[in-house]
Amino acid sequence: MIQPNNPQDGPFCRDLKNEKKGGGEHVSRRLEDYSFPEQLKEMSMGEMSLLAVQIREFLLENLSKTGGHLASNLGVVELSIALHRVFDSPRDKILWDVGHQSYVHKILTGRAGAFQSLRKLDGLSGFPRREESPHDVYDAGHSSDSISVALGIADARDMKGEDFSVVAVIGDGAMTGGVAYEGLNNAGISKSKILIILNDNQMSISENIGGMSQHLSKLRTGPMYQNLKKRIKSGLSGIPVVGQELYRGIEHLRDTLKYAVLDGESSLFEGLGLKYYGPVDGHNLQELIPLLEALKEMDEPVLLHVVTKKGKGFSYIEKHPDRFHGVGPFDLSTFTAKGTSRQTYSQIFAGALTELAEKDERVVAVSAAMVEGTGLAFMQKRFPRRVFDVGIAEQHAVSFASGLALGGLRPFVAIYSTFLQRAYDEILTNVCLQKLPVVFCIDRAGNTGGDGQTHNGQFDLSYLLPMPNMTVMAPGDGKELEQMLAFALTLEGPCAIRYPRGEAPAFPTGQGDQTEPLRLGKGVVLSRGKDVCLFALGKMLEPCRRAAALLEEAGYSTSLVNARFAKPFDQALLKEMAESCRVLVTAEDNGILGGLGQEAGAFLHKTGEKTGAFFSVGWPDTFIPHGDTGALFERWELDGPGIARRVLKMLKEGEKK
Amino acid sequence: MIQPNNPQDGPFCRDLKNEKKGGGEHVSRRLEDYSFPEQLKEMSMGEMSLLAVQIREFLLENLSKTGGHLASNLGVVELSIALHRVFDSPRDKILWDVGHQSYVHKILTGRAGAFQSLRKLDGLSGFPRREESPHDVYDAGHSSDSISVALGIADARDMKGEDFSVVAVIGDGAMTGGVAYEGLNNAGISKSKILIILNDNQMSISENIGGMSQHLSKLRTGPMYQNLKKRIKSGLSGIPVVGQELYRGIEHLRDTLKYAVLDGESSLFEGLGLKYYGPVDGHNLQELIPLLEALKEMDEPVLLHVVTKKGKGFSYIEKHPDRFHGVGPFDLSTFTAKGTSRQTYSQIFAGALTELAEKDERVVAVSAAMVEGTGLAFMQKRFPRRVFDVGIAEQHAVSFASGLALGGLRPFVAIYSTFLQRAYDEILTNVCLQKLPVVFCIDRAGNTGGDGQTHNGQFDLSYLLPMPNMTVMAPGDGKELEQMLAFALTLEGPCAIRYPRGEAPAFPTGQGDQTEPLRLGKGVVLSRGKDVCLFALGKMLEPCRRAAALLEEAGYSTSLVNARFAKPFDQALLKEMAESCRVLVTAEDNGILGGLGQEAGAFLHKTGEKTGAFFSVGWPDTFIPHGDTGALFERWELDGPGIARRVLKMLKEGEKK
Repeated sequence: MIQPNNPQDGPFCRDLKNEKKGGGEHVSRRLEDYSFPEQLKEMSMGEMSLLAVQIREFLLENLSKTGGHLASNLGVVELSIALHRVFDSPRDKILWDVGHQSYVHKILTGRAGAFQSLRKLDGLSGFPRREESPHDVYDAGHSSDSISVALGIADARDMKGEDFSVVAVIGDGAMTGGVAYEGLNNAGISKSKILIILNDNQMSISENIGGMSQHLSKLRTGPMYQNLKKRIKSGLSGIPVVGQELYRGIEHLRDTLKYAVLDGESSLFEGLGLKYYGPVDGHNLQELIPLLEALKEMDEPVLLHVVTKKGKGFSYIEKHPDRFHGVGPFDLSTFTAKGTSRQTYSQIFAGALTELAEKDERVVAVSAAMVEGTGLAFMQKRFPRRVFDVGIAEQHAVSFASGLALGGLRPFVAIYSTFLQRAYDEILTNVCLQKLPVVFCIDRAGNTGGDGQTHNGQFDLSYLLPMPNMTVMAPGDGKELEQMLAFALTLEGPCAIRYPRGEAPAFPTGQGDQTEPLRLGKGVVLSRGKDVCLFALGKMLEPCRRAAALLEEAGYSTSLVNARFAKPFDQALLKEMAESCRVLVTAEDNGILGGLGQEAGAFLHKTGEKTGAFFSVGWPDTFIPHGDTGALFERWELDGPGIARRVLKMLKEGEKK
Repeated sequence: MIQPNNPQDGPFCRDLKNEKKGGGEHVSRRLEDYSFPEQLKEMSMGEMSLLAVQIREFLLENLSKTGGHLASNLGVVELSIALHRVFDSPRDKILWDVGHQSYVHKILTGRAGAFQSLRKLDGLSGFPRREESPHDVYDAGHSSDSISVALGIADARDMKGEDFSVVAVIGDGAMTGGVAYEGLNNAGISKSKILIILNDNQMSISENIGGMSQHLSKLRTGPMYQNLKKRIKSGLSGIPVVGQELYRGIEHLRDTLKYAVLDGESSLFEGLGLKYYGPVDGHNLQELIPLLEALKEMDEPVLLHVVTKKGKGFSYIEKHPDRFHGVGPFDLSTFTAKGTSRQTYSQIFAGALTELAEKDERVVAVSAAMVEGTGLAFMQKRFPRRVFDVGIAEQHAVSFASGLALGGLRPFVAIYSTFLQRAYDEILTNVCLQKLPVVFCIDRAGNTGGDGQTHNGQFDLSYLLPMPNMTVMAPGDGKELEQMLAFALTLEGPCAIRYPRGEAPAFPTGQGDQTEPLRLGKGVVLSRGKDVCLFALGKMLEPCRRAAALLEEAGYSTSLVNARFAKPFDQALLKEMAESCRVLVTAEDNGILGGLGQEAGAFLHKTGEKTGAFFSVGWPDTFIPHGDTGALFERWELDGPGIARRVLKMLKEGEKK
């Protein structure tokens, strides 16, 4: 079994050695067998340190099989233990911003036994989900909003005269998001008792960006940190960890903290009106626990700056936290991913954009803290000054890109579909209204699988199609993505290219070996038949190709269309197909409401053409849970057999009439 | 003619007295006759001060006839003059955040002659519009994004090796918006030369909110301000305003400024890495101009804090800036609005919500800097602690409301349709995903008239209908709005009520005197006919009623349906109508794409019912320009005669077949 590196080094190991007494009872127990969070309250400092080791091993072993967010969870082991030790969940509310760092919280609230089902259909979610546990306060997933939600819960509590603590745990990466600032700004003037824990791991998903990041670094490394550490230690020396004596000790500690802060340089958070404490070592339970005890007593908005390390406990992961952000299953002995070698859409995108940048010096790229995930790291190596990573700040990313376009450049903004939602207004008013040539490269469009509800890109067609001046495309394979990127550069207005997570299919979408050149708003007929037409957009070409084969096998000749464009879509081709077949099906990896199929149906109805049966394949009007994308496609009948089954049903109904 | 109050008092008047020489030449010239901005460069300090007086009079006179944003423009007269004096527009780029304070900029760039057409169809826009003038750098309208856009323009400039200044003028109110912080955060780490002018008028539209506001107030009133003022004066004493000697003087001033800042308390902006200068009196041209000259030379991101007064120059307006934010035509002698006394939807909303709050203590309201505009000021008087004004921070407003709902309250979030766009992601993931009972009271839904493209609420149905778990209603009159608010309180999930700007129609939408009780997803048939059915949502009931009367006159019996619900919409009733008439028309004050009509058309097509002709009335796939709403409805055939005309055409085409 893999052991944490340097077992003599980490703070949890130091404590372990000193607390032999407590270690004996629990060390052989499985995490599943504890009665958490209650049993945490009875543990000695040594037992908790031992628990931290056990949790790290548990995470590594389990995630090597299921995949998941490893590095960030390794970073919050002690913080999660300390929070559940000091606060009384679910009475006290602990909110996990973004939420992918909630695995330890899940273990500590009785869900260790479910980890083999992590991120699987009907299994444990990788994010806090209210329906999963009363300890999960809100369904997190997107970043930076926990302060606002916490403030709302606190204000409701005060209005109802209730009494509990509200804690928001937010990363330094999330602190670059605008809504975090809006929350801080409102918390700063509020009298509401909330505790904001700034979990500063000195990087978000990729390297942290901006003035805030520099500010935190200054706070971290400045004399104040050293001072505070010393002061806390001297303040702590007289404090027993449990018992009636605690309170006086805490009062002393609070004074000590106050003094330390007033003594030092004022922080940006204080400028906004918040009480700022820290920074404190987030891997030192002996520092963390009494500090949280002290801050729990404070009756106002307080921010505690906790410094942690992503991947803590395993030197290889500490050195490469990026690789272990969201991982698939990996080999425990080599730390290498299990998987195939086919190229992902993100890789194809990055390669093609870099080539365009070679040829056209106007081409620049904008990323919102996702240079790795979107593939832009590749282009960044070649053109470091032409890739702008603005941090988790999608609104800025899009407004900034509109400025770049106004200045005569050709910005390609690569953001995941679900995160681009944050910039809805900026796409509409800063880009579309001004008809600026900004290209949105929408990665993770459609269903994204294991991350679930908050990460599916199931709404982008619905929100983009009603935007005036917008062109929307979706490639059916990697080659077509390359074509679309080059085509986007020829357009004089805004444009979006949506493509799914994962590998690009191997088959070419064009006819024969030669892919057909793109023409604005024109689809391509890949095969012609007289019974059925499958009008497929982007990723749906693959299941529709499979469905067409099944239908042919069943004796129904089938047309297969690669729609290519969702806006403007190929009305003439749609009409032609509607008039020439018995069942016409549109297919898109997007919600049906507001999608291409709905627009196509309304168009056909308005033209009043006598057409055959019609239906739209897409996601129904609900949030799709986490699970393997294949399993989800199957359950919701978006896969080849599912589509074929639905078509056959309609054909047979038609034959009965 | 109305004179500015206390003509001896204001800074512009003081200068006027001292500069008799310059005054003579220009005083009798009309603003239209200047060759701006060129001629500004030749003016003496006295002439510019005189110009400020003239501009104020011009604004008051013109806006009393056309309406418009008066108070904010009176506040930036000197600032606009100073900017155009120091910077060389359009070579240098001046960006106006929000943009409603750009009237003086328009006057100073040769558009004084067009002010009688302000906000009218085909007339002068009330916001910067690129198509109107090369001096309008970006189409502003929404708040807080100017820093991001400016940074984009600056980075494009640097990449292309160009050389000009980029200035973003942003109000203190806009500083509470998340994207402003995202912009500051990125500017802070950037090396790009931009100048951010923080126009601090100590309030945004209504009273300013949050820690940032308190921080600015501290900066304003602290010793540093006084210090700096003194230092600037002493620094200025040796500086000639024009000529070759300027540069050395500026160098001296820059040192002085630097010293003043480092001497004082560090500001939040410095925490983010920006150079902060100020605060400076924004009505004192003698201070402003040399300061801007100095800052223009700086090669990095700089923020200048300028303190101004909304309504400056007219004591009545200074005392009541809220009333003169966006005004209709008013009487110059009494300062009272011309208009009718019928109740607006906003007033009805506020009254009804206050009544609900009386009965149900869970009811609370959330506003994003619009307690006046949404009517919530009324409820605030009765329940000051149950109305939360979070500032311009729509993302926080919605996340915060989700927290309030998680805490057991019933938040009603009142935000204009166009501004709610900023919270698209939070509505979807924080409210809809969690099925929280948050009620969105969407004021200014549909066309809003004079403000134009950036302010029309023409997209809310398109972005809300695809959101799972959402209920969407639209009242046809004030009484129905009251019913819908009460009904919303009975729902256990998210809900939106959209209603238009302005007065609620007098007629009841129900049958006879008795309005029919609301049932989820059910419309109401107001009249029945066999030829035509008008299926109208919300405001469109009024023009459809008129169209029905015209059609009846023309001999076609017409059904009129009050749809009431856009989600879930009354599919059964739609189907019944489709089957029983020759022409079915849906009508909504929303874009056609993604609207109710599109969903209805797709539904009818999918059901495969044999129906008559079908079309959707709504806004086409374009941004609708500013103008009187009546004129816009007429031009785009959304008014009664327009709808009747389109129906008659279809009826006649049908008869020909």
